[in-house]
Amino acid sequence: MERQIMQIAIDEAMRSVASGDGGPFGAVVVQDGRVVSAAHNEVLISNDPTAHAEMQAIRAAATRLGRFDLSDCEIYSSCEPCPMCLAAVIWAKIPRLYYGCTREEAEQAGFEDKRIYDQICGKAEACRLESVRFMYEECLKPFAMWAEKKDRKQY
Amino acid sequence: MERQIMQIAIDEAMRSVASGDGGPFGAVVVQDGRVVSAAHNEVLISNDPTAHAEMQAIRAAATRLGRFDLSDCEIYSSCEPCPMCLAAVIWAKIPRLYYGCTREEAEQAGFEDKRIYDQICGKAEACRLESVRFMYEECLKPFAMWAEKKDRKQY
Repeated sequence: MERQIMQIAIDEAMRSVASGDGGPFGAVVVQDGRVVSAAHNEVLISNDPTAHAEMQAIRAAATRLGRFDLSDCEIYSSCEPCPMCLAAVIWAKIPRLYYGCTREEAEQAGFEDKRIYDQICGKAEACRLESVRFMYEECLKPFAMWAEKKDRKQY
Repeated sequence: MERQIMQIAIDEAMRSVASGDGGPFGAVVVQDGRVVSAAHNEVLISNDPTAHAEMQAIRAAATRLGRFDLSDCEIYSSCEPCPMCLAAVIWAKIPRLYYGCTREEAEQAGFEDKRIYDQICGKAEACRLESVRFMYEECLKPFAMWAEKKDRKQY
């Protein structure tokens, strides 16, 4: 079963390359052994830098199931998710991830996953993103509104 | 100028809380001092766990500009981006981030940004996501296709 599902992710990844839709990445979201969504990277065709395979699969699964909580699902990815996709898996509360290639193999294929991990975790020597913090007090106002909101739905 | 733009992000965050669309977060993408996109968190209204303010703003800006490379833009966020959003900023090649609140303040408001940073960076003691690596060799095939693709567009 797990092998069949991963093969769908691999086929999606190959479809992405063959079609020119995006990079060589595919992902599948599964619920009770059934495929809820299958997707591939569409960064190039959609001009969307966030259109990674896992993001597409998670968004499609959430739309299909009508909820942002996918804690009863699992996700398969042909490659270790980048930090964006890994965080999306965690936000979606998906408890189990199956993956094939690693960030190092993605790096050999020309992708920056590993460098972005290093940057986010403070290991990268050269940080290409400049961060400026300001207006701290004004930015706390929405949090105060949130705390006061009696019917707030924490996610 | 920077203060006016951050105020737009703050107003978006407050609109998110007031409307019930999502959490207390807003973001703005700017090009040459002009607003390209402004967005707020829509996780609750859209049932999309990836619909954070920065993701929405980046996707809208990429759609509006018709390209995934936003290296001539800047992004403002009412709160420090979570790892998903920070990686999206980096993938979009945005060189400068302005932010207000921190992951610690988000945590005080009930959001898991800090915990997800810790988990992704291997610091979290309790990891709620189980990762299983398998079918490594089969998963390398899409990378081989990518390497052989003569007209591939690296992103």
